Amino acid sequence: MDSRLKFIFKRRSVRKFKAEPVEAQQINELLSAAMSAPSAVAKDPWRFILLRDRSNLQNIASCLPNGKFLAEAPLGIVVCGDIDQAHDNTVSYMLQDCSAAIENILLAASEIGLGACWLGVHPREDRIKNISKCCQLPANVIPIAVIALGYPQTIPDPRNRYNPAFVKQEKWS
Amino acid sequence: MDSRLKFIFKRRSVRKFKAEPVEAQQINELLSAAMSAPSAVAKDPWRFILLRDRSNLQNIASCLPNGKFLAEAPLGIVVCGDIDQAHDNTVSYMLQDCSAAIENILLAASEIGLGACWLGVHPREDRIKNISKCCQLPANVIPIAVIALGYPQTIPDPRNRYNPAFVKQEKWS
Repeated sequence: MDSRLKFIFKRRSVRKFKAEPVEAQQINELLSAAMSAPSAVAKDPWRFILLRDRSNLQNIASCLPNGKFLAEAPLGIVVCGDIDQAHDNTVSYMLQDCSAAIENILLAASEIGLGACWLGVHPREDRIKNISKCCQLPANVIPIAVIALGYPQTIPDPRNRYNPAFVKQEKWS
Repeated sequence: MDSRLKFIFKRRSVRKFKAEPVEAQQINELLSAAMSAPSAVAKDPWRFILLRDRSNLQNIASCLPNGKFLAEAPLGIVVCGDIDQAHDNTVSYMLQDCSAAIENILLAASEIGLGACWLGVHPREDRIKNISKCCQLPANVIPIAVIALGYPQTIPDPRNRYNPAFVKQEKWS
């Protein structure tokens, strides 16, 4: 494991957080990291809704079968894509762009001492519908994922999941 | 700009490379970084085809209208998703997982002194068809993007593209 890449290997999903809030400065850093991702034709179709109000966190948590712990997190970020702004208005580019931004948030969070977990929304129609309603999203803004964030109760060890079976040379076969 | 997050801000698209090859050890680091991304239900549907043969790099470059420079790059990585392995066999999760892996490769490349550029493939049907043919992909393995890699001819400055218009509090409106 190359020590220069520790920022990648130490990112692990964190689901239990301290009660301590995340400071505004750190939230700005996370969002700056998100918006430093590349996007198709630099369309930057990503949009972010910050959740710190406890009742809103609870409402969004109730939309996520595997994200009940969001109700206890100090911070949530709903990552959405604006399909009207995405390259060629395609869902595929919108998803790719937003996913790169999400990964940047997760890596940045880990590097500045926070913990985070990526909670899937798209393509689950019920989750999209319920979160769109909770967040009062216009029809062109589609929730892709929610990120739960906070100071971790425990910091997991770095790990490497390299699998040589997933790598081919020049051609598949 | 927080110096701890320089690894994110300094990642810029690089399209001109030195002729010097990328060492096997560095390629392993890039792939380890890729496979350290989170994936939906830990299905890890990503697959990677390494291109170092000049004629193969040229063939793939010819499939990419905006990626002609891949023909001159020392390394290409075709990032594919195995739809049979993706969570619930959905294209959306496959794209999200592969995009997080791609972003990890781009960040890792920049951190170890390489330059890289993300070249879009999915959802362009002609690019998918042509690259699948060049790489002899089975029907369940779908090319998502190609990454051009090498030592950069020039290293661009870090930048921050934070846009406050993309951030909302609690609800959209």
